[in-house]
Amino acid sequence: MTSVDLNADMGESFGAWPMGDDAALLKIVTSANIACGFHAGDWDVMAETMKRAVANGVGIGAHPGLPDLQGFGRRSMQMAPDSVAHMVQYQLGAAQAMARAAGGTVRHLKLHGALSHMAVADGELARRAFAAALEVQPDLVLMVLAATPMEDAAKALGTEYAAEIFADRGYNDDATLIQRGTPGAMITDADEAAARISEMVREGAIISASGKRTPTRIDTICLHGDEQGAVAAARALRARLEADGIRIAPL
Amino acid sequence: MTSVDLNADMGESFGAWPMGDDAALLKIVTSANIACGFHAGDWDVMAETMKRAVANGVGIGAHPGLPDLQGFGRRSMQMAPDSVAHMVQYQLGAAQAMARAAGGTVRHLKLHGALSHMAVADGELARRAFAAALEVQPDLVLMVLAATPMEDAAKALGTEYAAEIFADRGYNDDATLIQRGTPGAMITDADEAAARISEMVREGAIISASGKRTPTRIDTICLHGDEQGAVAAARALRARLEADGIRIAPL
Amino acid sequence: MTSVDLNADMGESFGAWPMGDDAALLKIVTSANIACGFHAGDWDVMAETMKRAVANGVGIGAHPGLPDLQGFGRRSMQMAPDSVAHMVQYQLGAAQAMARAAGGTVRHLKLHGALSHMAVADGELARRAFAAALEVQPDLVLMVLAATPMEDAAKALGTEYAAEIFADRGYNDDATLIQRGTPGAMITDADEAAARISEMVREGAIISASGKRTPTRIDTICLHGDEQGAVAAARALRARLEADGIRIAPL
Amino acid sequence: MTSVDLNADMGESFGAWPMGDDAALLKIVTSANIACGFHAGDWDVMAETMKRAVANGVGIGAHPGLPDLQGFGRRSMQMAPDSVAHMVQYQLGAAQAMARAAGGTVRHLKLHGALSHMAVADGELARRAFAAALEVQPDLVLMVLAATPMEDAAKALGTEYAAEIFADRGYNDDATLIQRGTPGAMITDADEAAARISEMVREGAIISASGKRTPTRIDTICLHGDEQGAVAAARALRARLEADGIRIAPL
Repeated sequence: MTSVDLNADMGESFGAWPMGDDAALLKIVTSANIACGFHAGDWDVMAETMKRAVANGVGIGAHPGLPDLQGFGRRSMQMAPDSVAHMVQYQLGAAQAMARAAGGTVRHLKLHGALSHMAVADGELARRAFAAALEVQPDLVLMVLAATPMEDAAKALGTEYAAEIFADRGYNDDATLIQRGTPGAMITDADEAAARISEMVREGAIISASGKRTPTRIDTICLHGDEQGAVAAARALRARLEADGIRIAPL
Repeated sequence: MTSVDLNADMGESFGAWPMGDDAALLKIVTSANIACGFHAGDWDVMAETMKRAVANGVGIGAHPGLPDLQGFGRRSMQMAPDSVAHMVQYQLGAAQAMARAAGGTVRHLKLHGALSHMAVADGELARRAFAAALEVQPDLVLMVLAATPMEDAAKALGTEYAAEIFADRGYNDDATLIQRGTPGAMITDADEAAARISEMVREGAIISASGKRTPTRIDTICLHGDEQGAVAAARALRARLEADGIRIAPL
Repeated sequence: MTSVDLNADMGESFGAWPMGDDAALLKIVTSANIACGFHAGDWDVMAETMKRAVANGVGIGAHPGLPDLQGFGRRSMQMAPDSVAHMVQYQLGAAQAMARAAGGTVRHLKLHGALSHMAVADGELARRAFAAALEVQPDLVLMVLAATPMEDAAKALGTEYAAEIFADRGYNDDATLIQRGTPGAMITDADEAAARISEMVREGAIISASGKRTPTRIDTICLHGDEQGAVAAARALRARLEADGIRIAPL
Repeated sequence: MTSVDLNADMGESFGAWPMGDDAALLKIVTSANIACGFHAGDWDVMAETMKRAVANGVGIGAHPGLPDLQGFGRRSMQMAPDSVAHMVQYQLGAAQAMARAAGGTVRHLKLHGALSHMAVADGELARRAFAAALEVQPDLVLMVLAATPMEDAAKALGTEYAAEIFADRGYNDDATLIQRGTPGAMITDADEAAARISEMVREGAIISASGKRTPTRIDTICLHGDEQGAVAAARALRARLEADGIRIAPL
């Protein structure tokens, strides 16, 4: 039986500012990517989010980002690779501690926003960041964008990883994401998105907007929780996958 | 044979701004209290400092402080005890990761600056902060100010701790520190400071400016590295202790 | 005809995190206290908020706070008075620039959160902060808590000021606010709050929970916009004041 | 008689971390580019630096940088042009206020580090940033890199500007700077640098490493104060210029 993990970003509140509907998402996903205080989240938000993830039996992931709170870690920065490596270790360590205090443990690591884009565009940077994380926690599962240099980096490290596709994004024929702002970049119809994802998981391939198949490993699906209708779309996707005989299971 | 640990704050550089002579101090002390990025230090400074501590065989301590870089963690803040607890966990976790990546391990924890003052003034806050740290690392050695509510807090937790006195500070008859700005608060003569500390360690007592003895456990001596003549004073102290037959040994 | 100003905090979003319903509040109040980037707000939020205030003909106020984004400037910090003075100047200057770029001008200054509490508790600190602000802008209107050492500080400086009462807070017999967490601290019934405030404005007195009158100058009423039902309560208050023949006018 | 301004970055200390020898440099230069708290400097450092600049009769410049303290504003960030514009306004306003409180006034604006590089590489970004600054202060003198798109941007705005060359950097034949890390990028011999600069100023041309002349307007020379021997080199340059009959005068 085919099985797949569902992941979503969480713990993105900061201080007095709430964000997202973590409580609802935790009923749907099997992995939570928890912000580590650099682009979002703070020590109190992390503590709370870790406890909720443990209570819901959802896998805990460290979700490090760039040191850019105002930009939510979405603006790329020209950081030295060594500094990126140390920064990922720092955030991973903080997440490990918060997870332990909540009675859980970090299971996976996923890079956030522009840091992720930087690592997709630069496989060597991905390798450095991942190798640094593995120095801190050798049994970490690396969550990577399927069929990208980031996946190659994880593969080359000979370590456990999970290849990810996006629930609400369209793909080009070369299996890259259609750039935001371009027609087809976002799939806003929840049922269409769910049907498409179910097909990809069952076929083990990224399916482009034009229908082209790129066979690839698919271990997890990224849901988005911070937009209008996101929770409903996430529920629809989960229901569709289960209806199609796919088991939803953590990494 | 009496033995004592020597500790100093380190890794207090930040970004483009250097601070302190860590290289020299690492030849003298047996424990390094390494800043965790909130009041000083950053991920790159931590990585470098951890490596140096490992290379010199110096014990690694997490040295969490308040989230106040501009104030170097020296301004007290009215933080909720829960938030203090989470903040200590966060910084401890970051330090653990950086230590592990450097081939070492965090051995002790010491609160910095105003956070330390807050925990000396409020034993319950100390207990909360320490209990939180122990949730993350149960075998942590807590470094506490000797003969204060902070020591009581560590004792009550039934955990390993190290009681600390200051190399360059004068004491009142009730074993509290003479407040900065008051005559006798700072002992600026290195030889006088060394002789006085050696006597305290041998007698197992805090000796006040007036000569009053308060018997207390003394496990470690805090040196300061960031002021003029500090390294020379540290060397003088270590030499004097060794000349007086006291063994300098890590926690 | 009695007239009064209505003020509310605004521009408290930060980066990706929205806060408050500024658009609605700007239709109700006559003065906006705009966060200056330390406890809330950022350069983009400020630019947007300034433009909206200008478009709505609402008076612009600089609303400086402590350098504590995670704590929303609500945790008091032991800052040196000189540093408080410089910090207020810095934020005021930033606000002036953003106002000018939006085609407006800063008219008043109101201290935020813990900084305000600190200045109410310590009239000398209030005087220092206000004097510093006046060095930067001599024609600034200082918004102060009525019948407190903060008002005394403004009075002693011989400068224009506006004395403020709170729309939704109960008062003790000595005209101080009933502490949060104590019964009667918050007046949650919008009609009751509106009636009470209208009475205070018409009588020129703070009226305590027990009915005691303390005659005092009342120039402005502080509304809160960031809580459930706040906008409706603000509308109810404005309507009641107008129904009672009080003119709502900017400072 | 030919005259030229000498400028240097100042006020780059932060909190407990000193940087540079501002006191010495203020005796040599005629313009100070004062950090505005984003990449360096803080409200206290700014207040102190403004006072010193006023006391020494040195022209005050706002020196805004990217919001990246750990990277000293030297890492480029993918910021939206609007956000850059607001950020420059914010920092300029803060600098204006601090200058006014010190009895002075901001005379010029110079972009720092990566923000400057970004504006040299993207003339439209330069135009946006400069136009935004002029909205705040229309009589501002824009300090720009001579013979670059940044100079073109200032020229197109029809506003006062000062074209700048670097005292210690080598130039390519196309009048661009030799990239750091390449041979000839840094001119470390103070006498050689002084002779070369004097020649450029007298000829009104950038002279490349190979001797090629690119005629250009030269209004100011950038000195660096934060490196070993920098103050001595600055003194040598000033002496050489004066010996060659060039008048050193503020903008």
